[in-house]
Amino acid sequence: MRFELDRIKRPALLLDEARCRANIRNMADRARKSGVIFRPHFKTHQSKNIGRWFREEGVTAITVASVPMAAYFIEDGWHDITIAFPLNLRETDEIRRLTLKADLNILVTQAGTLEEFAREFKGNSRPAGVFIKTDTGYHRTGLLPSDIPEIEKIISICRKNPLLIFKGFLTHAGQTYLARGREEIEAMGRESIRQMKTLQEAGGRGSHPLLSVGDTPSCSILGDFGGMHEIRPGNFVFYDVMQTVTGSCSQGDIAVCLAVPVVSKDAGRREILVCGGAVHLSRELLKWKGHSIFGLITRLSPEGWDPPMEGCYVNSLSQEHGVIRVNYEAFATVRPGDLLGILPVHSCLTAQCMGSYLLPGSETADHM
Amino acid sequence: MRFELDRIKRPALLLDEARCRANIRNMADRARKSGVIFRPHFKTHQSKNIGRWFREEGVTAITVASVPMAAYFIEDGWHDITIAFPLNLRETDEIRRLTLKADLNILVTQAGTLEEFAREFKGNSRPAGVFIKTDTGYHRTGLLPSDIPEIEKIISICRKNPLLIFKGFLTHAGQTYLARGREEIEAMGRESIRQMKTLQEAGGRGSHPLLSVGDTPSCSILGDFGGMHEIRPGNFVFYDVMQTVTGSCSQGDIAVCLAVPVVSKDAGRREILVCGGAVHLSRELLKWKGHSIFGLITRLSPEGWDPPMEGCYVNSLSQEHGVIRVNYEAFATVRPGDLLGILPVHSCLTAQCMGSYLLPGSETADHM
Repeated sequence: MRFELDRIKRPALLLDEARCRANIRNMADRARKSGVIFRPHFKTHQSKNIGRWFREEGVTAITVASVPMAAYFIEDGWHDITIAFPLNLRETDEIRRLTLKADLNILVTQAGTLEEFAREFKGNSRPAGVFIKTDTGYHRTGLLPSDIPEIEKIISICRKNPLLIFKGFLTHAGQTYLARGREEIEAMGRESIRQMKTLQEAGGRGSHPLLSVGDTPSCSILGDFGGMHEIRPGNFVFYDVMQTVTGSCSQGDIAVCLAVPVVSKDAGRREILVCGGAVHLSRELLKWKGHSIFGLITRLSPEGWDPPMEGCYVNSLSQEHGVIRVNYEAFATVRPGDLLGILPVHSCLTAQCMGSYLLPGSETADHM
Repeated sequence: MRFELDRIKRPALLLDEARCRANIRNMADRARKSGVIFRPHFKTHQSKNIGRWFREEGVTAITVASVPMAAYFIEDGWHDITIAFPLNLRETDEIRRLTLKADLNILVTQAGTLEEFAREFKGNSRPAGVFIKTDTGYHRTGLLPSDIPEIEKIISICRKNPLLIFKGFLTHAGQTYLARGREEIEAMGRESIRQMKTLQEAGGRGSHPLLSVGDTPSCSILGDFGGMHEIRPGNFVFYDVMQTVTGSCSQGDIAVCLAVPVVSKDAGRREILVCGGAVHLSRELLKWKGHSIFGLITRLSPEGWDPPMEGCYVNSLSQEHGVIRVNYEAFATVRPGDLLGILPVHSCLTAQCMGSYLLPGSETADHM
């Protein structure tokens, strides 16, 4: 089956199923070899279709970014879900309803919030699992591992409440996205794991809290997970240009590419205007070889896409316009009416903007 | 009618109908007083509901950013539409079908592209209007007013083809978005108009090309349009924080505000974490008082929102997380479970991300 490029009139997000399945298989293998639970984050693809490719690799437990995303995947038969976003008290009722359909884990960062939740959750017929969100260096949210008083308060609320099952500690070492190269990722990942291990006795002897780590860079690079029990990477399902710069993957691992129609050319600036802007790619920006770029450029064929073209990148974006800087050879050969491919800086946001995937044979995969 | 804040569980884009209607009325008045055609750009709101508020102000001609957007508004009875995006040859068939339902103007930047279009458009039962996209300083796309040979080629293609009606010249002086203050906007707007006026004899004596200008900053500031025939502003329907910095509007003119649930607080960093990230606001960034911000913070009430709180802003965004820096007073009083309001940096992209509007009484307005 081949991509039916002639039928593409406007930006379309091409999905390379073979690469995507290879990315899933590789990460599942890494988890198996290291003896950790593989609970992939589904926020990157947000797709029931792609979720089934994970199921074919034996995955049964997943991570999501929101309560509606949990509901979406429950509809497709997923029954073991961690909502990896700190508890939003306005969603207590919805969480309660979802616990009746699946084993749900919630995330807390403050004892006071969990107390309020517990009051409303009282009398529920099924329990919720509780993870403590832990900050091991990203400094976005979560308790520092040294904040033992607050950690003990949360564990003690769970002990007193049979509907709240204390599960363990969860961190997202998002600082690895700023790494440049495998050694830096490895160092950051190890440091995050070291901090998580200080928590293995938390909750007292015999408590055995589960330690869960998550970022794609360290999950892609580390040879073992040093005593962690679970990994939750998400972006690896597609990877993207940012991850090649970080050092998590090679360009050949990127599994999505935005096909865009060429609209006009400006010889003076050696620029190509495409139909494809911030509403398709998102405004995620990356420093790359001295430029600030919104994506790399590739040629498309019915079989997929080529490696990026030397010196070609998305230089600026408006709402629907993309301006591409190209080399002389590309400028000479690309014509209005052609398609070009853009490898996205951040595949999660591009997938969210596009809302569906195009496969060979003009099949599509859903996005929530 | 009041905003039913208690029913908001997740990010919701509040729309202040009175402010929005006032923005529409003011711009319609400016156009009337200056004797120019008011052809508002509907890409900002992309809403049939809001489009009807324009109709109530006497608007009959509109601008859109894409072919699907034209189709969307034709469904709601709009019959005079300029697609202000350079002609995408892959959409020729769809454009042909739409010309049967409405008076459609297309945009061209290259004679070669129009020639290819003309070949496929041959035999159509209805004509299309043709505007030449002109670059008066934004340098995104379009012909320089000095590029008379290419301009004459395009006009000559139209002369030979009864289905292509040459309408005139269209520019978007997007450089005004970089202005700081009314004087700079005025100077940039006047310079763009000066360049457009050099084209008033193009096409030969008696040709009377229509001159169309468009950006919200100059349309909001200029007292007259110096011989232009048409204005096409879009963003003014909502305005946003970027436009207050540019000098186009005051904070009290902003007509949309993202309501976000407060999730947790970090005393060490004096930061508040909200449910509301890049998938809700977009990643549009603005330099503001020495910070890079993604939005300003306000308190919500059932009547709407207050002026922004001093020294409070969205400091960073992940996919679903927003991190807000606040002052001492706000940190002390805001609690998990509360709602806060975020005035967006760029309302067009936030509206696109959110996909609908919330009005008082829990009514909603559509987004394409």
